[in-house]
Amino acid sequence: MTVKAILSRKGNDVITIEPTVTMSAAVNILAERRIGALVVVAGADKQVAGILSERDIVRALAQRGPGALQEAVGHVMTRRVVTCTESDTVAALMERMTQGKFRHLPVVERGELVGLVSIGDVVKHRLGEMEHESNALREYILTA
Amino acid sequence: MTVKAILSRKGNDVITIEPTVTMSAAVNILAERRIGALVVVAGADKQVAGILSERDIVRALAQRGPGALQEAVGHVMTRRVVTCTESDTVAALMERMTQGKFRHLPVVERGELVGLVSIGDVVKHRLGEMEHESNALREYILTA
Repeated sequence: MTVKAILSRKGNDVITIEPTVTMSAAVNILAERRIGALVVVAGADKQVAGILSERDIVRALAQRGPGALQEAVGHVMTRRVVTCTESDTVAALMERMTQGKFRHLPVVERGELVGLVSIGDVVKHRLGEMEHESNALREYILTA
Repeated sequence: MTVKAILSRKGNDVITIEPTVTMSAAVNILAERRIGALVVVAGADKQVAGILSERDIVRALAQRGPGALQEAVGHVMTRRVVTCTESDTVAALMERMTQGKFRHLPVVERGELVGLVSIGDVVKHRLGEMEHESNALREYILTA
């Protein structure tokens, strides 16, 4: 099972933001869209420059107080973004998320952002798989 | 596989907070402990009164601005806490997390808080299971 299977259900839409936008605007977008992270893109070719998660926001507030909300997203975002590709297996994804304690991995194909997979998507996908396995087993028992 | 298996690895420690503490103190604890949620307990018997996650903090900031950091945790926390017990299966846990979009479930046994399971714990556990399955298969092939 690959990342492609998750994206085929979830779609390729990713909410992005530019690094010059203020943190308080980013907070509003996260709350409105009910999502946990924004991919930060920069330049005419919209390259992935970073990722801004709820965790990054809480850490900035802890370090610098409410003033952090006036800072630019580019100042607070995580710069070293770990990404994945459509052909990565879900197991590899899980390993990367567990090791790095990430909850979101941007999906990049030939330098282009084509999706965002969250840890919630991974668990949802695994639930679907388990249901499939149990149906297959039931079918087998009924027809054997 | 049950919640008990996850707790046997992770331990029973839960970082709790009281509802009267300020949000800015809660933000500091989350950042220091590198965790994503605090269980809010109240009264002499320390009953679970709510849960405060990074998401609750971001939403409060979006709704009420930086002033939300001066509010009491009890004002911002999620009150309707979905919990689980040690005997719940990991599959049931995954379903509850997916349906409610929760990333943390307090584990309660006979009214007492005995642990906290995060979505990261679930994925880590599943990785361990997969490794176990693949080792068992390798063993089988080598000895068959």
